[in-house]
Amino acid sequence: MARTGLSDKGRLEAFSDGVLAIAITLLTLDLRVPSRDAVGADGLAAALAQRWPAYTAYVVSFLVIGIIWVNHHALFRQVRRVDRLLLFANLLLLMVVAAIPFPTALLAEYLTEGGRDATTAAVIYSLTMVAMSVAFQLVYLAAAREGLLQQDLEPAVVRRQLRRFGAGLVLYGGTVAIALASAPATLAAHFLIALYYCFDQLTVRRTGERVEAS
Amino acid sequence: MARTGLSDKGRLEAFSDGVLAIAITLLTLDLRVPSRDAVGADGLAAALAQRWPAYTAYVVSFLVIGIIWVNHHALFRQVRRVDRLLLFANLLLLMVVAAIPFPTALLAEYLTEGGRDATTAAVIYSLTMVAMSVAFQLVYLAAAREGLLQQDLEPAVVRRQLRRFGAGLVLYGGTVAIALASAPATLAAHFLIALYYCFDQLTVRRTGERVEAS
Amino acid sequence: MARTGLSDKGRLEAFSDGVLAIAITLLTLDLRVPSRDAVGADGLAAALAQRWPAYTAYVVSFLVIGIIWVNHHALFRQVRRVDRLLLFANLLLLMVVAAIPFPTALLAEYLTEGGRDATTAAVIYSLTMVAMSVAFQLVYLAAAREGLLQQDLEPAVVRRQLRRFGAGLVLYGGTVAIALASAPATLAAHFLIALYYCFDQLTVRRTGERVEAS
Amino acid sequence: MARTGLSDKGRLEAFSDGVLAIAITLLTLDLRVPSRDAVGADGLAAALAQRWPAYTAYVVSFLVIGIIWVNHHALFRQVRRVDRLLLFANLLLLMVVAAIPFPTALLAEYLTEGGRDATTAAVIYSLTMVAMSVAFQLVYLAAAREGLLQQDLEPAVVRRQLRRFGAGLVLYGGTVAIALASAPATLAAHFLIALYYCFDQLTVRRTGERVEAS
Repeated sequence: MARTGLSDKGRLEAFSDGVLAIAITLLTLDLRVPSRDAVGADGLAAALAQRWPAYTAYVVSFLVIGIIWVNHHALFRQVRRVDRLLLFANLLLLMVVAAIPFPTALLAEYLTEGGRDATTAAVIYSLTMVAMSVAFQLVYLAAAREGLLQQDLEPAVVRRQLRRFGAGLVLYGGTVAIALASAPATLAAHFLIALYYCFDQLTVRRTGERVEAS
Repeated sequence: MARTGLSDKGRLEAFSDGVLAIAITLLTLDLRVPSRDAVGADGLAAALAQRWPAYTAYVVSFLVIGIIWVNHHALFRQVRRVDRLLLFANLLLLMVVAAIPFPTALLAEYLTEGGRDATTAAVIYSLTMVAMSVAFQLVYLAAAREGLLQQDLEPAVVRRQLRRFGAGLVLYGGTVAIALASAPATLAAHFLIALYYCFDQLTVRRTGERVEAS
Repeated sequence: MARTGLSDKGRLEAFSDGVLAIAITLLTLDLRVPSRDAVGADGLAAALAQRWPAYTAYVVSFLVIGIIWVNHHALFRQVRRVDRLLLFANLLLLMVVAAIPFPTALLAEYLTEGGRDATTAAVIYSLTMVAMSVAFQLVYLAAAREGLLQQDLEPAVVRRQLRRFGAGLVLYGGTVAIALASAPATLAAHFLIALYYCFDQLTVRRTGERVEAS
Repeated sequence: MARTGLSDKGRLEAFSDGVLAIAITLLTLDLRVPSRDAVGADGLAAALAQRWPAYTAYVVSFLVIGIIWVNHHALFRQVRRVDRLLLFANLLLLMVVAAIPFPTALLAEYLTEGGRDATTAAVIYSLTMVAMSVAFQLVYLAAAREGLLQQDLEPAVVRRQLRRFGAGLVLYGGTVAIALASAPATLAAHFLIALYYCFDQLTVRRTGERVEAS
């Protein structure tokens, strides 16, 4: 059967890749072209320069979704069977990730507003990342159940991984606290976390995680 | 031939997954950022809170399309051959599902309006779900014809499945009646139906539906 | 090599399916929700009813792109090798198809305007379909060259197919003439052509075109 | 494992194809329908004719992204293994390509504005292409490292390829200079570069690059 179409795991990966690819590309729509009316005496360059939070938020959210894709990828490489619970946990994760363009646009719009509204936008952005982290953890827990992985994980490995997720949750939770103090600092914090995850993964060299194209 | 490209069934699944993934992600575009002008003295948080129907509608429609994807998935796992009638029945289903962001945005915008306009929006939302249910049933009937499935279904199985579809149609039809009474209740009803389908499927444990990634 | 990733033909099909799936789903964005200000004393239902050209245009363009997908599908099932000329001919086709949401929105907006502007919109819609028909024909000609198909076509088959394309071109060209007379009739003509192609293909029963999922 | 789902290389290709397909199709959204208010006494046709930079920019950016897809394709056909560095270099490339609809819309909007603002838009468009060229080169360098390709490249081949990239960089850098002089000439230059790459690739006939669908 698997030979005549995409296997279940293949379709879940393809659907997830589709949603992640669309969400990451829809971020572009927040890089709005200023209307001719909005461009004042200082010209287009000045009007664009004022929109710097939009470009920064684009880069940060692009990295965040990109890292989710890489991790989703690494997780499902180890999955052998997909059941309905895993399907729905994955759907919950996609629901959060697909919404990321919204808090991104919100933060881009209100970051430089200052005061209460900038705080609101920054808190919502950080809470979205907390929700994403929790949802990813649920997918991991659903996948780590007996019989779904290529080879059953030793409890020690699952515990270690859950501790890593816990650390990630603490990091994202910390950005909620930062958001109460400063919206630009919140964006910077998310950028640093994303960079950290990029480098963290670039230096992973354990055999079990070697990526082979076969 | 299948080895050199995607098989017919594979391409139909890939195209359907694409349309479903895009439709589900485009729901995000209805989570509009309030313009600075629209944010009054109560601030951004209040302006966002007022938009609660948009977030609720996002969650409900996301679940609905997600469940369509899971069911589409389960159905095509049993399909062996694809013919033109099945292609076009599937195209009709996709035409309805791709349109779902529209009634979703409509309901989000007019839910709290009250009166005639809220009723109009709720009825259109419910009718879209009725149309989706009918279209899915047509796909099932097109697929259940002789020779397309892995193994021909016993008439009793087809009759049982059609009774299940009939029950779904009654449920969705019921939401049209609810829509005439209350728009918020309509959204709640669709949420409950979606949850019911999630749990219904999570508890399916018949061997024939066991999902294996090979 | 093909086993470790998607083959060339597979990636061309996947990329084309992606563009077609996105173009067909973006049609939804033209089903705009009327703003509360635009809804007059007659209520939302009346405001929506006035937008009937948008729904009709959605259905017609959805069918058109759907049929392109089915035909693209049928053509590439016979393709064995992909070369650069075929890649670029295919890119040209995708360029036209990806643009279809634009003339669709144009026709939806100006259909009921009457006069010169309705004619302009209808002519542009019809010319887009002429361009699509020509581009598809170029893809066919690029694919029919020596050595790219599963088995080289007899010249008689190619000639017969080109006559069919010619007939299609005459049909679409005819809608340009209709567009000069009436915009609603133009939309009706495209709907009838789409239906004709659906039924034409549903009744194709020649062995060579039997669709098998292996 | 690779048989039960998409391989790592396959998922990277599928994700990249997804982002490229979405970015190329989102270009359509810049082909905006003029509102009825904006259509003056000269009618819709005149209003559309005035928007010629939007259509030209659509064609040029479509070709640019299409060529990126063809080259990405040709590069990954030679890749055997994917590691994290290659994943992230590819993510950087996608980040630039996904943003292309923004400078395209910017150039379309301000091309005929003349003066400082047209220059700003043209420079940003050209700089985006420079960034794209650099990102593609990084992907090539990441892929050309030991052990990732089907067969290790001779240093002479890598040097020759890097010289070709260098030439491309000089071409795109030249368009930045042109942008300082004339925005329409910038668009023309990018069109000519795209055409050059199309024909360049159409005439490549070396055995090593023959494209086979198996």
